[in-house]
Amino acid sequence: MTEVVLGIDVGGTSIKAGLFTPAGELLEERKIPTPALVDEAGFTTVVGGLTRILESHDASAHDVIACGLDIPAPVAADGSVSMTANVELDPDGLVHALADALPVAQVACVNDANAAALGEMWQGAARGVSDFVLIALGTGVGAGVVSNGRLVAGAFGAGGEIGHITINLDETRTCGCGRRGCLEQYASAKGIVRLYLEECAARGVTPAAVGHATDTLTVFRALAEGDDCARLAIHQMCEYLGLAMSQVSCVCDPALYLIGGGVAGGFATFAPDLRTCFAKYALKGCQGARIEAASLGNQAAMYGCAYEALRLRG
Amino acid sequence: MTEVVLGIDVGGTSIKAGLFTPAGELLEERKIPTPALVDEAGFTTVVGGLTRILESHDASAHDVIACGLDIPAPVAADGSVSMTANVELDPDGLVHALADALPVAQVACVNDANAAALGEMWQGAARGVSDFVLIALGTGVGAGVVSNGRLVAGAFGAGGEIGHITINLDETRTCGCGRRGCLEQYASAKGIVRLYLEECAARGVTPAAVGHATDTLTVFRALAEGDDCARLAIHQMCEYLGLAMSQVSCVCDPALYLIGGGVAGGFATFAPDLRTCFAKYALKGCQGARIEAASLGNQAAMYGCAYEALRLRG
Repeated sequence: MTEVVLGIDVGGTSIKAGLFTPAGELLEERKIPTPALVDEAGFTTVVGGLTRILESHDASAHDVIACGLDIPAPVAADGSVSMTANVELDPDGLVHALADALPVAQVACVNDANAAALGEMWQGAARGVSDFVLIALGTGVGAGVVSNGRLVAGAFGAGGEIGHITINLDETRTCGCGRRGCLEQYASAKGIVRLYLEECAARGVTPAAVGHATDTLTVFRALAEGDDCARLAIHQMCEYLGLAMSQVSCVCDPALYLIGGGVAGGFATFAPDLRTCFAKYALKGCQGARIEAASLGNQAAMYGCAYEALRLRG
Repeated sequence: MTEVVLGIDVGGTSIKAGLFTPAGELLEERKIPTPALVDEAGFTTVVGGLTRILESHDASAHDVIACGLDIPAPVAADGSVSMTANVELDPDGLVHALADALPVAQVACVNDANAAALGEMWQGAARGVSDFVLIALGTGVGAGVVSNGRLVAGAFGAGGEIGHITINLDETRTCGCGRRGCLEQYASAKGIVRLYLEECAARGVTPAAVGHATDTLTVFRALAEGDDCARLAIHQMCEYLGLAMSQVSCVCDPALYLIGGGVAGGFATFAPDLRTCFAKYALKGCQGARIEAASLGNQAAMYGCAYEALRLRG
């Protein structure tokens, strides 16, 4: 019998399951298309998919010593989940179905950005670093804060919700959270594209052919080609993000910031500007923090939830 | 032989030493006037003072199992100290002198605001709370952040330096840290008095007789007596502090904020306004955080450094 660990990344219409060794080697990653994860039908599909992955590695359900789930919802330090609207998921039901199917496994739920941070600490760019922050710039802006080698999940599961730091009191548009001037309004993929289109409109310039509301690739390409509006938009993003990071440093003072999420595809393009903006705003004592790219891409959360389940097992 | 613990609060011209049982009962607190703590003369005075406290409790240096020092300087997670200017203290020298004098004691250095947080967790208003923030409003604004029951000291010792969150980009005055618009410029004792005098000047009103630059007592008394300028000044302070706390919640999401430091003398006066301002700015998920007064007053740091030394001893 070989001990194995599962990390399950719960998305909208499919889940991605990773089979790991307890040492953190990824043996296989497989997508499991699922109906909504709200009833027995959905849970059975997941368990069936996991069983096939295990069988293809000559393992059984009894070999799974830990199974982590990362979910797009706040998870408090005590493990309780606050489900958000728009996510078709019954986390308690899924956890129970997994606990039934994997009789010896420690099961754990982790918020997705928090899981990504733990994944980077386990097998990625934060290996050996006990105080760092992973910032996931994507559709939204999330973060995972690690202090003393432990996740800062928070009393209400909002640890690392830095996308909702109020960064601009003058903002008139409303953020998805119902408040105004959140970092997410400027540093998410949507925010970056909007800043670019606004800059073009303000200067009466025809923008590059942005494909959709989160097409940062086109903005970064325009920047690389010398588009001044793209440069100004990205600078604006770096100003807000650098300021927010300086505030984060005054709270938890990390040694390292890792930038992940879809927007991190442009990291090389905006990193110098972001480092300058952070240094401009940061308290002197915190300026030594490094700002680097995350290394596990969209596998980070899958790694991280597997890690957290293993850790809880002790 | 009875095991005892020492907590030493290092101030400018004197230190305050507390003798504790390992369970956290304060047996005695005594001031030890000292010369500057930079050489053997200073260290010997401290050790002599401690010896007399021990003797008066029929204890010897060998009974001290842990000895904590709280100092007004950043202490990183690895215990390294960054001395700041204006503090006449050689922390390494003092630690060595104590380690020599207390042969079986675990010695630990803790930043003062961080120590206060640990003290409140050990024997004060945060007992049993594993995720909270103590905010010390005094000459400056410091904080101690506790997550998962552990201090968030930070990679460079700047964990909890929330007094230097940039909260007002339009500020023209320079903060003591060399930057502009820090929370400390509005929520410290000096900041509150300044806001009050400015409000009076702007309205052409004769202010209450403020005794000195940090005399918040007079401002709070004026507020209690219906002084409109005092009300507006305190509201301004609550706006900035509530906004900063909403940002802190997006990073570490505490269950509880404790307000300590000299300004906390006016807590009952400003707490309702502060709670309203925090609720206005806080992300919905974090609004459950309670805001209460700290309970150990200026003994908190002495308790907390004793606790941390005990914890490190294991």
